[in-house]
Amino acid sequence: MRPVFALLTDFGQASPYVGQLHAALLAGCREAAIIDLFHEVTPHAVAEAAFLLAASLPHLPPASIVLAVVDPGVGTDRALVLLETPAVHVLAPDNGLLAPIAHLGTPWRLAVPEGACATFHGRDVLAPAAVRLAQGAPASAVAKAWGQTPLTPLPVPAPPPEGGILAQVVHVDRFGNLLLHLPASQELPARVRVAGHPARSVRTYGELAPGELGLVRGSQGVWELARREASAANLLGMTAGGWVRLEPAP
Amino acid sequence: MRPVFALLTDFGQASPYVGQLHAALLAGCREAAIIDLFHEVTPHAVAEAAFLLAASLPHLPPASIVLAVVDPGVGTDRALVLLETPAVHVLAPDNGLLAPIAHLGTPWRLAVPEGACATFHGRDVLAPAAVRLAQGAPASAVAKAWGQTPLTPLPVPAPPPEGGILAQVVHVDRFGNLLLHLPASQELPARVRVAGHPARSVRTYGELAPGELGLVRGSQGVWELARREASAANLLGMTAGGWVRLEPAP
Amino acid sequence: MRPVFALLTDFGQASPYVGQLHAALLAGCREAAIIDLFHEVTPHAVAEAAFLLAASLPHLPPASIVLAVVDPGVGTDRALVLLETPAVHVLAPDNGLLAPIAHLGTPWRLAVPEGACATFHGRDVLAPAAVRLAQGAPASAVAKAWGQTPLTPLPVPAPPPEGGILAQVVHVDRFGNLLLHLPASQELPARVRVAGHPARSVRTYGELAPGELGLVRGSQGVWELARREASAANLLGMTAGGWVRLEPAP
Repeated sequence: MRPVFALLTDFGQASPYVGQLHAALLAGCREAAIIDLFHEVTPHAVAEAAFLLAASLPHLPPASIVLAVVDPGVGTDRALVLLETPAVHVLAPDNGLLAPIAHLGTPWRLAVPEGACATFHGRDVLAPAAVRLAQGAPASAVAKAWGQTPLTPLPVPAPPPEGGILAQVVHVDRFGNLLLHLPASQELPARVRVAGHPARSVRTYGELAPGELGLVRGSQGVWELARREASAANLLGMTAGGWVRLEPAP
Repeated sequence: MRPVFALLTDFGQASPYVGQLHAALLAGCREAAIIDLFHEVTPHAVAEAAFLLAASLPHLPPASIVLAVVDPGVGTDRALVLLETPAVHVLAPDNGLLAPIAHLGTPWRLAVPEGACATFHGRDVLAPAAVRLAQGAPASAVAKAWGQTPLTPLPVPAPPPEGGILAQVVHVDRFGNLLLHLPASQELPARVRVAGHPARSVRTYGELAPGELGLVRGSQGVWELARREASAANLLGMTAGGWVRLEPAP
Repeated sequence: MRPVFALLTDFGQASPYVGQLHAALLAGCREAAIIDLFHEVTPHAVAEAAFLLAASLPHLPPASIVLAVVDPGVGTDRALVLLETPAVHVLAPDNGLLAPIAHLGTPWRLAVPEGACATFHGRDVLAPAAVRLAQGAPASAVAKAWGQTPLTPLPVPAPPPEGGILAQVVHVDRFGNLLLHLPASQELPARVRVAGHPARSVRTYGELAPGELGLVRGSQGVWELARREASAANLLGMTAGGWVRLEPAP
């Protein structure tokens, strides 16, 4: 079966690091396919990366090998993890990035080989390990037992002390939709107010009037604050990591 | 023959949607190649996408399966089309995006399967249909007869009431070149004026003096307003959708 | 062996040219892999592209065919080169882009075929030649002998007349790290001053205090000026092409 690598990083298009990661993976495994899940994670934003990784995992081909690299502590003594799940392998730093999916599998501990550049473990540590997995090596041949300590959790930020439903913005997409840390399975009031703006719950962006703010059960498994052909982020002045308060509207 | 998918969207690099589209396509068809034709269409700009799709079609490998998704009406009752041409299949919303190439083939009507997310038909409707085509299913097995109604045309914007040659800017590229809705096969005067600036017709950007404005028969089959190592868009303050007037120069 | 193409350009994500290059390559060689090394070279910045090309070359799969296109003189009488090295083939304009790697191989001269668009030689000249190489044609069948003239060198900019160690910024990455034209193998003082700011030499970004400026032996083979989770470029107001002066600190 053709190996599939999937990449999620904060390297951005404006850095040559994504290209060198592709080169290293294909140098080791010439037949592989590579999926660029997302490279524009806000720099160093581990929580945003953790959300996007969890949201993308269900769509991956079986037996994908995921490299998730948002790693402000690269080269320090933070550990590197190989998470082995029934569906996929995920390689990442142990800094909270794997917290939402840690329950899905078994962690292993990756060693840093001699000669690895201290500032680019994605290319020099994770990619070689991913290649060995793609070549059929078991996790136990690529990494060591993790031990008893749990993986690093994500910090839980204290929400501002106010009423209503509080939700953190986990990602702002290109259209200015605000993806909220509220599962789409949760019921919300049909009408709410957000920072003084009325917002009604709709099924599609197209049901909104031009400029109107709405709440949509989005494609990433969470509620979104959205406008029709306009940016909710601009209207509300919000970026990833911020908090919104949904107040019931009369 | 290896299946080839080609993608043209307004999802942008700053959204995780392109990655999930790749994931869904490779999950269904692991051997496929995927070409990212362009994902930075101005959000919701159907006319720009229609131009870029038509310009890119001749360069695609034979039997490519194109997913073109600029779809402000996603989830509403706008139809989804499979356009079958002798060279390629194109899947897209029926909102004008296919207007410039509709004459090349036969339209079919795609149904929205149960459970598809109302805000991401590219991933949940078009990708599964594309995968079935890649696996060899005929259009008639993937979609229904379109019927008698023509595909939705592009709106024809009224040009401002002035003399000279009027042309709409269909795309601004990274270099600030303004791609005009004027076929490169059309003859233009050797010298014109544009918004007070003289512009002469040249074969290459390098023939222009630094800062000079020129008209070039570009690589996308249309005339371009360009400067040498400088941005014509900045000079003229133009973005996609705007109009320029070419006045004959003495 | 599966053909591998690798691309390095200044086309950017905001232009449709990268996608058409992929289309042309896969139309000619449907089984190939394509590596997007980097497309966000500062427009027309030949020296930046030359640095990134040389830094990426060691990571490429064997027998890769590289298309490097930063080509302000496209369509003029500047030559097009095929550089044949033991490891890879590189196709590029002869404008200095190949200067740092010219010693690695033998140059050949590419002809411009009739009908090639004068503004997009990457798609219409380099891609067809690359496809022929991928199909097994030798360099001598794709290009002509280069002759005795050396390849075009890069201009050597005159540094400002000051003391200390002067280094040019060859690239600014997404994180605001300034990559300097100083080999990582060179020894530097443990503490220096840069534009009035103290900077100490460290092994990892994480060793720096928040906001502190540091010097790191980076992943691209050169020294970097960096800050911990912050932008050195913003602090120093520097962009690619600028000069920094490292003064010994007491």
